[in-house]
Amino acid sequence: MKARVVVTLKNGVLDPQGNAIEGALDALSFQGIQSVRQGKVFDVELDTDDADEARKTLTAICEKLLANTVIEDFEINL
Amino acid sequence: MKARVVVTLKNGVLDPQGNAIEGALDALSFQGIQSVRQGKVFDVELDTDDADEARKTLTAICEKLLANTVIEDFEINL
Repeated sequence: MKARVVVTLKNGVLDPQGNAIEGALDALSFQGIQSVRQGKVFDVELDTDDADEARKTLTAICEKLLANTVIEDFEINL
Repeated sequence: MKARVVVTLKNGVLDPQGNAIEGALDALSFQGIQSVRQGKVFDVELDTDDADEARKTLTAICEKLLANTVIEDFEINL
């Protein structure tokens, strides 16, 4: 089965990439953007078709490799 | 309003970051992962509350700044 994992910075953590994008949008004269925050997305293909098992595996993978849980949150979408 | 933009590599485009993650998962003895592809996610806050206008602005931003449409696809979720 396919799953999408989204890793985003926690609220309050500085996001220099997002700030750079806001600056670039200003420079390109885009109006009406209040804020931009950047994160990462991972499209994972798993052998299993069992949603519970997939969620368990992906949670372990996020905690161990994909996300830094001190400063980042992760979401698993199956 | 808030919107989430997801930028992913098109099918067939090599993804060295995704391959590195697959290698790391192997090294960490995670089983049952067929493939991983990495993309980017942008959480954007817009002034407007009009979905059509937001979609139009975000499409322009993606085409001009956030995505390289030769090798990347983008999705806008409002």
